Amino acid sequence: MNTIRFDYGNLLSSRVEGGIDERQLATSLADRFRAAHAAVEARRAQGDLGFLDLPYATESVDRVTELADGFAQWFQDVVVLGIGGSGLGATALKEALLGPFWNARDEEGREHFPRLHVVDNPDPHTFQRLLELLDPAGTMFNVISKSGTTAETMAQYLVARDWMESAVGQDKARGHFLFTTDPTRGALRQIGEAEDIPMLSVPENVGGRFSVLSAVGLLPAAVCGVDPRALLAGAAAMEERCRSDQLAENPAGLVAVLLHQADQELGRPIHVLMPYADRLRPVALWFQQLWAESLGKADSGPTPLAALGATDQHSLLQLLMEGPHDKVVLFIHVENPEAEVAIPQRHPEIPSLAYLGGHSMGELLSVERAATAEALRGAGRPNCTLIMPRIGGEELGQLLMLFQIATVYAGALYGVDPLDQPGVEVGKQLTYGLMGRVGVTRPEMLDPDSRWIV
Amino acid sequence: MNTIRFDYGNLLSSRVEGGIDERQLATSLADRFRAAHAAVEARRAQGDLGFLDLPYATESVDRVTELADGFAQWFQDVVVLGIGGSGLGATALKEALLGPFWNARDEEGREHFPRLHVVDNPDPHTFQRLLELLDPAGTMFNVISKSGTTAETMAQYLVARDWMESAVGQDKARGHFLFTTDPTRGALRQIGEAEDIPMLSVPENVGGRFSVLSAVGLLPAAVCGVDPRALLAGAAAMEERCRSDQLAENPAGLVAVLLHQADQELGRPIHVLMPYADRLRPVALWFQQLWAESLGKADSGPTPLAALGATDQHSLLQLLMEGPHDKVVLFIHVENPEAEVAIPQRHPEIPSLAYLGGHSMGELLSVERAATAEALRGAGRPNCTLIMPRIGGEELGQLLMLFQIATVYAGALYGVDPLDQPGVEVGKQLTYGLMGRVGVTRPEMLDPDSRWIV
Repeated sequence: MNTIRFDYGNLLSSRVEGGIDERQLATSLADRFRAAHAAVEARRAQGDLGFLDLPYATESVDRVTELADGFAQWFQDVVVLGIGGSGLGATALKEALLGPFWNARDEEGREHFPRLHVVDNPDPHTFQRLLELLDPAGTMFNVISKSGTTAETMAQYLVARDWMESAVGQDKARGHFLFTTDPTRGALRQIGEAEDIPMLSVPENVGGRFSVLSAVGLLPAAVCGVDPRALLAGAAAMEERCRSDQLAENPAGLVAVLLHQADQELGRPIHVLMPYADRLRPVALWFQQLWAESLGKADSGPTPLAALGATDQHSLLQLLMEGPHDKVVLFIHVENPEAEVAIPQRHPEIPSLAYLGGHSMGELLSVERAATAEALRGAGRPNCTLIMPRIGGEELGQLLMLFQIATVYAGALYGVDPLDQPGVEVGKQLTYGLMGRVGVTRPEMLDPDSRWIV
Repeated sequence: MNTIRFDYGNLLSSRVEGGIDERQLATSLADRFRAAHAAVEARRAQGDLGFLDLPYATESVDRVTELADGFAQWFQDVVVLGIGGSGLGATALKEALLGPFWNARDEEGREHFPRLHVVDNPDPHTFQRLLELLDPAGTMFNVISKSGTTAETMAQYLVARDWMESAVGQDKARGHFLFTTDPTRGALRQIGEAEDIPMLSVPENVGGRFSVLSAVGLLPAAVCGVDPRALLAGAAAMEERCRSDQLAENPAGLVAVLLHQADQELGRPIHVLMPYADRLRPVALWFQQLWAESLGKADSGPTPLAALGATDQHSLLQLLMEGPHDKVVLFIHVENPEAEVAIPQRHPEIPSLAYLGGHSMGELLSVERAATAEALRGAGRPNCTLIMPRIGGEELGQLLMLFQIATVYAGALYGVDPLDQPGVEVGKQLTYGLMGRVGVTRPEMLDPDSRWIV
């Protein structure tokens, strides 16, 4: 298996001004990591960390593959209705493994697999436009909500169900839905059982933002021809690498410890994740949720900022180079872009163009990443790089597992529970109240005050 | 004209714990704004702020419209090659005004206007896939680079030019290109003149991130049927509202002063822009560049974070509610979503679903925004809201101009030049050196050290 590597040289004081003292890695940080590792192992032993078991859940994968094979034959369009981890995970897998323009390709370009639409936001404009594009007879909706009470997803489901029934009739409509939900509880489970709709389970001990390698992410990917086993093999390999309590050997441990140290000791709480590959942009957004929702509590926690190279060299780089010393950049470098686009020689008379000819576009991108990392290093801006040999299932499985394990280590280092999200409850209750949910009191809201509106 | 309003009540200490003292608005902040306003007016008088004149550049708009009308008839696919402001501006206009799934719609759904592809990143995988989708005979490339030396864009141009020539022949290929560049200088201008390729100009005093309302943004939008005059009328109306040096009357002034104050006095340097409309997500990314590249210098400046409601309630909200007190949220609320999607009544027996029925999806989104703002306010997290009556050309023109004017005021408040970006130069020179550009020395790069790679 092609192994992901983590290069943290540009975080160390021997390479970058104001960096982390390398000697700490063998002493205080190694100790701190051993404690975090032990805390995580204790939670694993309690059965809290279900995501660590997903790579080995072969039965559930067999069921995903079996369902996916059927859906792939029957349907031209698969619509995922899911928000948060469900939407972000499905999109991360879709873009990374199916590549850009999947839905725009013709049948042959898609090898006769369906188009895949992931709809998270309940934006009426988007939803209306989407339904206009679809032929109900050829469309399947995968409704994902672990609790079965996610307002956005359930609203979309109600609209989609009605739309499907008007088109194909009440009886046939059921065959166009698949629910991914809690194994025993919640509204979706209840409806699915009453109406005999196929269902997949998210294990009880796997939360939304740790669910990408469960049926949540695997089913949509598998329907489009992605082999879930490659993803899981990669995830398993990373899970095994990260069993070590020796900091120097544990890549997720190093990511967690060094980013935590950058925040707490270097005063760099903004963690920029900047892959140099369009296909990994959604992984950065998936990471943003994982890192923010897991660690942002108790008035502390880092702020993840999703970026994209080389694009954001023309947007965020000025701030990264000359703004406040409050950031650390984590690049992702893809060694083999698996697409050869040669830049032709033209205009030898124009120096600002001539040098490009003879290189490939992949070389340009790769050189730009190296140049940006070096420019940041030279300006006293610590950075580090995850090196992916290529963007394949095994490599992506490693990457996603690395970030998930790093997150639970970071939870231990920050002293917070990385699995909960109590802060979102207030807004949910206010929404229920304003929408008139039975049993929830309508909240008193402050009126807008025209003195403060211009 | 439907006017954009700015509601800043939730930034003030009378509404939110730890907010800004309202009395300062009439005293010290009003004074500080008058000084910033005067500094900006001085630069305007010197002719530095060309973006303020764009709403009145009727001749240039006539030329854009004339060219666009022709291209719309001849081509089925328009590809914008441009990075930074060029890519972000074109994408912001495209998504906001053409709406989601424009390229997926059929000819009729697009009212016979072309598809529009904006390609910023020189990712070989994306570029190869894109070319596979296109019929050269029906494809036009709008190459945008003010300097004519943007490596990413020029590399794409060289590939696209070769590809087009192989398909339609050297002579005909010229008719498939349009250059948007400096009025007199640079490689693109030089090639365009030598080869008789149609060209549009970006005024000399309009930088990339302030160019969305020049030919850079207007031509791609106009080719797809957007009326540039509505955008400019909106921008003009906002420009006029912002001539006042009275803080209480100037919406861009209030945005700049209050966000600057949130950073400098409240210790909230992270400025989250969170529209509740899919169509405005790219505006948040456009703002991110504008705010970051203009203000991130001299070891200071705010960090813009692009978000999207309601989606990011399931990603960033936990961090916004319970993370460090280092953020301020600027919502965008769209009053009329212009798409009616009714949520049907189903399952009256399930309370977690029953309350949704009878509402519209737009109502749900709107209630969620109000609930989130109120939850943040209650948790001592200052926030504010731009209220857009709808997402139309006039309203978008107002919004884009508001942010651009706020940016130059903020430059004055932070004491930096909002028009330059000196920090990106080091990386560019390193790239030139590594790519072997004549006259640039190959830099010595540090080798990766295996001690620091795991």
